[in-house]
Amino acid sequence: MPAPKEFLDYVDDQADAFIQRLSEAVSIKSVSGDAAYRPDVFKMSDWVAKQFRAVGVEIQQVEIGNHVMDGHKLELPKVVLGRLGNDPRKKTVLVYGHFDVQPANLSDGWSTEPFTLSVQPNGQLVGRGSSDDKGPILGWLNTLQYHYENKKELPVNLRCCFEGMEENGSEGLDELVERESKPGGWFDGVDCVCISDNYWLNTRTPVLTYGLRGITYYKLNVSGPSRDLHSGVFGRTVHEPMTDLIKLMSTLVDVNGKILIPGIDDMVGIADEEERKLYEALDYSVQDVEASAGAPIALSSDKVEVLMGRMRMPSLSLHGIEGAFYGPGAKTVIPAKVSGKFSIRLVPPQTPNNILPLVKAHVESEFAKLGSKNKFELEELHGGKPWVTKIDHWNFQAARAATKAVYNKDPDMTREGGSIPVTLTFAEALGVNVLLLPMGRGDDGAHSTNEKLDRSNFIEGTKLLGTYLYEVGAIAGK
Amino acid sequence: MPAPKEFLDYVDDQADAFIQRLSEAVSIKSVSGDAAYRPDVFKMSDWVAKQFRAVGVEIQQVEIGNHVMDGHKLELPKVVLGRLGNDPRKKTVLVYGHFDVQPANLSDGWSTEPFTLSVQPNGQLVGRGSSDDKGPILGWLNTLQYHYENKKELPVNLRCCFEGMEENGSEGLDELVERESKPGGWFDGVDCVCISDNYWLNTRTPVLTYGLRGITYYKLNVSGPSRDLHSGVFGRTVHEPMTDLIKLMSTLVDVNGKILIPGIDDMVGIADEEERKLYEALDYSVQDVEASAGAPIALSSDKVEVLMGRMRMPSLSLHGIEGAFYGPGAKTVIPAKVSGKFSIRLVPPQTPNNILPLVKAHVESEFAKLGSKNKFELEELHGGKPWVTKIDHWNFQAARAATKAVYNKDPDMTREGGSIPVTLTFAEALGVNVLLLPMGRGDDGAHSTNEKLDRSNFIEGTKLLGTYLYEVGAIAGK
Ligand SMILES: [Zn+2]
Ligand SMILES: [Zn+2]
Ligand SMILES: [Zn+2]
Ligand SMILES: [Zn+2]
Repeated sequence: MPAPKEFLDYVDDQADAFIQRLSEAVSIKSVSGDAAYRPDVFKMSDWVAKQFRAVGVEIQQVEIGNHVMDGHKLELPKVVLGRLGNDPRKKTVLVYGHFDVQPANLSDGWSTEPFTLSVQPNGQLVGRGSSDDKGPILGWLNTLQYHYENKKELPVNLRCCFEGMEENGSEGLDELVERESKPGGWFDGVDCVCISDNYWLNTRTPVLTYGLRGITYYKLNVSGPSRDLHSGVFGRTVHEPMTDLIKLMSTLVDVNGKILIPGIDDMVGIADEEERKLYEALDYSVQDVEASAGAPIALSSDKVEVLMGRMRMPSLSLHGIEGAFYGPGAKTVIPAKVSGKFSIRLVPPQTPNNILPLVKAHVESEFAKLGSKNKFELEELHGGKPWVTKIDHWNFQAARAATKAVYNKDPDMTREGGSIPVTLTFAEALGVNVLLLPMGRGDDGAHSTNEKLDRSNFIEGTKLLGTYLYEVGAIAGK
Repeated sequence: MPAPKEFLDYVDDQADAFIQRLSEAVSIKSVSGDAAYRPDVFKMSDWVAKQFRAVGVEIQQVEIGNHVMDGHKLELPKVVLGRLGNDPRKKTVLVYGHFDVQPANLSDGWSTEPFTLSVQPNGQLVGRGSSDDKGPILGWLNTLQYHYENKKELPVNLRCCFEGMEENGSEGLDELVERESKPGGWFDGVDCVCISDNYWLNTRTPVLTYGLRGITYYKLNVSGPSRDLHSGVFGRTVHEPMTDLIKLMSTLVDVNGKILIPGIDDMVGIADEEERKLYEALDYSVQDVEASAGAPIALSSDKVEVLMGRMRMPSLSLHGIEGAFYGPGAKTVIPAKVSGKFSIRLVPPQTPNNILPLVKAHVESEFAKLGSKNKFELEELHGGKPWVTKIDHWNFQAARAATKAVYNKDPDMTREGGSIPVTLTFAEALGVNVLLLPMGRGDDGAHSTNEKLDRSNFIEGTKLLGTYLYEVGAIAGK
């Protein structure tokens, strides 16, 4: 059951009004990571609540407590919960989005005022939050407006969860999701989840995303002298913590990305021909990766290897050293205590818990081999599990059919290299299938300067979200 | 010819007055590395000039131009040049000291106000600059006062060079020394140099120092992507500059201090039994090194190895990384451009110039081996040559005899692991023997909190400097 032609026509007719409303949303500086903008995030929560109420959605704005940021105790922005429809014959779809944004200043290098949506001649809608994640939230709103104004019933029951702290760790959200997923909770009865908060691989082909990597973050602490030492007086008389740490860090990963900690890469099976074909089929080239990185530095000229490196393999990155000299110029001190930071992106069946003993055994054995008299300890900072779901689920079938209907193309089926922790929270709390259905393109620059959403992605994307609901509805009716 | 008994008695008699004068010197906050204190450094130059004039020394305060510090254009403190005696039958001795000091604040952890000399019950004179280097300058002044008040002729012709920028790179001094060393210059006719600006190895045994290590400082620059990358999106798809840099840095030095860059350690011959005996004879133990470092981390339990590591071998220390994450917490970025900093302390015949090709060949070959697509370059930041002089020179014989006379002990003959660049400047500009004759002890804490000079080191040290002049005078008379 594709979406009715009236809906698609309505979206085209209203395009300019929809863009005008996106411009209003962008003008609210809902930066969650800066205490000074917290009132704007509150304002944004109210704005979203009001907009969805205006199209017939029952709304609850939920207080989720306080937190401390930059030394200030701050109230967390209210989560906007929405509810529309309770027909037991229909599927119940939960949609998620976030109305907070990354910081942005003209002086960072924006070509236009970041909080004033600028409609470019090439169709780009430039402004902070246009793509991440106000555009997608408005995609749902646009769809609901058609049904409200035209007194059409939605093909599904809808539940909404829009938060204002995503760019700052989604503080307070996990507890709310777990609470509302219980019997009698706001999300009780949800059959599937749809999150629109990631991107196409490229600028051409729509995407459905079925996996995310997890992460685990470590500190290697090496300490020796009781204070920083003069390298003239102590050089070649004592064990230097930096020398030990650099040796240790050099045993973690090779230049080609292979993880040298025994057992970690081995947890992931080798891709067979069939699985390789999934990556071969993606509309993404090594040149796309290099264009995105800004330099010809891909680990391989084999597209499948590069894409699997991002999507189906763990990765280990060395981030830096705390306690050593880091400024410009030439300081000659021997640092007394240094901490090397690295993280591992995880894929199933890896979890922070099952990776830790491997990391610990390796670094402790490597440190022992050094024979240094300095002290060493491994510290685990934080972590999150990876997520991969089944793409043959009806939720994905509906999204695939909707993509085909709107874009006349099969979507690329992707896994993301990064994390969207709320995905796993929904999957585990509700026990239902979760789909990531992005609206924007790979070059939207979500956390960069000149963030944009293409007009066609906003308008066709609105059609995609609406059509997806019709496809889910059709499945329920089968 | 030992010093006259009257001189030694005079120093004992005047001890309290000398300490009172040291207290006056310490109270002038002549911090050269902080623009806010520049007027105090000027005041200190005037104070030194006035004091030496008062004991009959001809004084010239020399302007040496401007420099830029912390964004301020500042006048450099005037160098105080002194002249006393022109008897062609006498040796002419040039003495050097510096009247500027390191920064100090009570809040750094001082037990007493740093710029108020505090006389402790155990005889320690605690205050910034007491040992580095106001005490030694006053040692010369005390000696001259005896001769002036008692109308005694000095056994040598004296030249003084006291500067106010030593703690900030001795800016402007090299040019002055080179100018004044020419025929007709202030230092024309100088037969030897005596610098009192270092320390005993321990708290027990006086020292003559005949060598200093040089230094050469490098940056290893590795760059790849055009901007910092998200480690979720790019981990295991591109060559990461940090991975390459850590590998490179791990090839420079081993955990036991051996330099792994081919050819560098080899430039220094193996110590034969006779040379080892020089180090064996020093009154310094592995326990002393470890007490000073604050932890049991000496590279060897063999005292000779440890002392040679500091004094007669080059050393390589890894200082840190510019461009990587260095703060507390857990940032997951892949840095786009990182610079590893390291320095090598040099011993003869090593110089920054003859070491550079070895370092360059090594790091370029190691980087090539990695097979990374990132870009690499070696950058040389700054350097200074090492200095070692002959200890059988009459200048050292005089100092040895003076030490024996005052302390009733043979001095330890040491080389320092660090640098005092002006030493080499004097040696090269004048072509005469330079002696380092320290006044303070190894635990004076020159650049730390609670800097002190022991009362006995100040008073016996004054006798030592005076007696040294008599011993030089005796040699001239032979
Ligand atoms: Zn987002
Ligand atoms: Zn975001
Ligand atoms: Zn000094
Ligand atoms: Zn100093």
